[in-house]
Amino acid sequence: MLSTSLQAKLCAPTKQASPLSRAVFSLLYSPSTHGYSRVACITIQQHSSRSFTTTQDKKLRDFFPIKETESIRQTLPAWPHHGYTEQEMLSVVPDHRPAKTVGDWFAWKIMRICRWGMDLATGLRDEQQVDKKNPTTAVTTIKPLTEAQWMIRFLFLESIAGVPGMVAGMLRHLHSIRRLKRDNGWIETLLEESYNERMHLLTFLKMSEPGRFMKLMIIGAQGVYFNSLFLSYLISPKITHRFIGYLEEEAVHTYTMAIKQIDEGHLPKWSDPNFVIPDIAVKYWQMPEEKRTMKDLLLYIRADEACHRGVNHTLSNLNQTDDPNPFVSEYKGERNPPRPASKPQGFEREEVI
Amino acid sequence: MLSTSLQAKLCAPTKQASPLSRAVFSLLYSPSTHGYSRVACITIQQHSSRSFTTTQDKKLRDFFPIKETESIRQTLPAWPHHGYTEQEMLSVVPDHRPAKTVGDWFAWKIMRICRWGMDLATGLRDEQQVDKKNPTTAVTTIKPLTEAQWMIRFLFLESIAGVPGMVAGMLRHLHSIRRLKRDNGWIETLLEESYNERMHLLTFLKMSEPGRFMKLMIIGAQGVYFNSLFLSYLISPKITHRFIGYLEEEAVHTYTMAIKQIDEGHLPKWSDPNFVIPDIAVKYWQMPEEKRTMKDLLLYIRADEACHRGVNHTLSNLNQTDDPNPFVSEYKGERNPPRPASKPQGFEREEVI
Ligand SMILES: [Fe+2]
Ligand SMILES: [Fe+2]
Ligand SMILES: [Fe+2]
Ligand SMILES: [Fe+2]
Repeated sequence: MLSTSLQAKLCAPTKQASPLSRAVFSLLYSPSTHGYSRVACITIQQHSSRSFTTTQDKKLRDFFPIKETESIRQTLPAWPHHGYTEQEMLSVVPDHRPAKTVGDWFAWKIMRICRWGMDLATGLRDEQQVDKKNPTTAVTTIKPLTEAQWMIRFLFLESIAGVPGMVAGMLRHLHSIRRLKRDNGWIETLLEESYNERMHLLTFLKMSEPGRFMKLMIIGAQGVYFNSLFLSYLISPKITHRFIGYLEEEAVHTYTMAIKQIDEGHLPKWSDPNFVIPDIAVKYWQMPEEKRTMKDLLLYIRADEACHRGVNHTLSNLNQTDDPNPFVSEYKGERNPPRPASKPQGFEREEVI
Repeated sequence: MLSTSLQAKLCAPTKQASPLSRAVFSLLYSPSTHGYSRVACITIQQHSSRSFTTTQDKKLRDFFPIKETESIRQTLPAWPHHGYTEQEMLSVVPDHRPAKTVGDWFAWKIMRICRWGMDLATGLRDEQQVDKKNPTTAVTTIKPLTEAQWMIRFLFLESIAGVPGMVAGMLRHLHSIRRLKRDNGWIETLLEESYNERMHLLTFLKMSEPGRFMKLMIIGAQGVYFNSLFLSYLISPKITHRFIGYLEEEAVHTYTMAIKQIDEGHLPKWSDPNFVIPDIAVKYWQMPEEKRTMKDLLLYIRADEACHRGVNHTLSNLNQTDDPNPFVSEYKGERNPPRPASKPQGFEREEVI
């Protein structure tokens, strides 16, 4: 075994929290006589490249051991990652596309409800909240979150983030073969997005083990979310892409906050030089040897989210049935396809079609 | 415009057909006072690389004009085709994997019903049927089909063939992010399969325009087929993969029969040296200049179907939750991943895991 683990159970009771968030917390973390039981605990694993045999280590099961059989060595990722320059990763900023249509407004309001639910599930106290007038751009809080709170947030976010791309890709595929219409390159980008989100989730799962209650919540959330998105995409793909754009604004915001709090030294477990990020992430993003800290990982993930944000806001601006997907198109002259991460509010139709 | 078209309306009434198939035919082809109306007619287009302006030509609308906008030249295929050697294409033969389990038997019986429906919709007469004891391997008939009959068959087959890969890929994706389990490479192969089937469909649609009734049938068929597969994959992915394997046996059989009838000179419209296959196909399969006849096209498509057949029969033999997808895995030692087309009945689990 390559890595051993230092367990840090991070189930802090939240005594100053609001009554509602305390109730949710008590469900997530079900307090037992021994403080807080494992039912919903996040157990953060700290990998080290040196191999120690400890009993601690045995307690953690490896969620996804590399599938090695008698004859198979490994199974490679479906969509190799295209990579980023450091400049691209560092220049990502939280942003917000103001609602311009009724559809935009509607998508934004629904997203506000989702964010409220997320803050509740993460057990956020008032002093951990950002300015509510600028929920996706403000990054200052009185008190930072804990590693465990961040981890719950990442896990929830990523376990539902893999749904919309798959739903949209599938529905466009079925539409194409049912209505006998060309798709013009949208499907691949949507499916790749959902794959990329799944890699985020798998990465975080390598670092933490959600408890049984949280697993149940994830299953329930997918049930609701998948069916809502399925219907919503059938009714209005335009509004749905806007909604996903707003979801990605939240994702960029979340990762920016976490990176900021690492920078400010509030998350010591993740700044610890012994904290080793999982192999699955190193391989997927082809992370260079000297850049493999938790912060580097979050920079990669945030850049991915910035791409999704640009892609979905742009797709929402296009004609859903006729316009080609600009991001996989070959442009005339010397022009290169647009880079979605560079445009937080998405490209307007005239700019790319 | 690059190609002009010679229209050949191929709506032959079927006077010697059985009463039931005559009834279906009369629906598909709705006879009008002018012989047979356009409602469900298949109009086979014959492309020519020289440009003639004819009024005939104007009547046919181009289903999928290449999407060229002010700034975008073209949109490239999502999954580039991996190509075949001529040897690989020529060595494909119809085959049948005998049912070994109750599940296999069940899948096979359902497929018999589908084939019966397909023969009905294609208006097959008794003397156009093969030996019913060996429905997927016998290729001799008393009378060949017409080009129009083949085209209906191809279109129906391909419009539903794009469904199972997408359903299976989506459900495995959702399962992975819901149950927090690794997928081990299955999703990409399944999604690529559905993309490949969609390319088959788009290719045939470039050559023919289904009538309104047939379009309705395609929509209805997808509704039934998508929901059945969705449920069936939730209940038993193993049996569903076997069913898809049997569907692909039918596809290989259908294309083998068509190729044989071209070879025997029964399909003059497709052997005509002026018959030009659509650009979308030339580009997707990267067909060499000297090999672009209808027969060559069917050889490529049949090889694709042989891959799907091998893949799905193999997947059905594996442990659905734990085994990696052998076709995208890296093997130990000098061993290469298995080639699905080379194994019509699929690999047994011991051979590849
Ligand atoms: Fe993500
Ligand atoms: Fe995202
Ligand atoms: Fe096909
Ligand atoms: Fe197929």
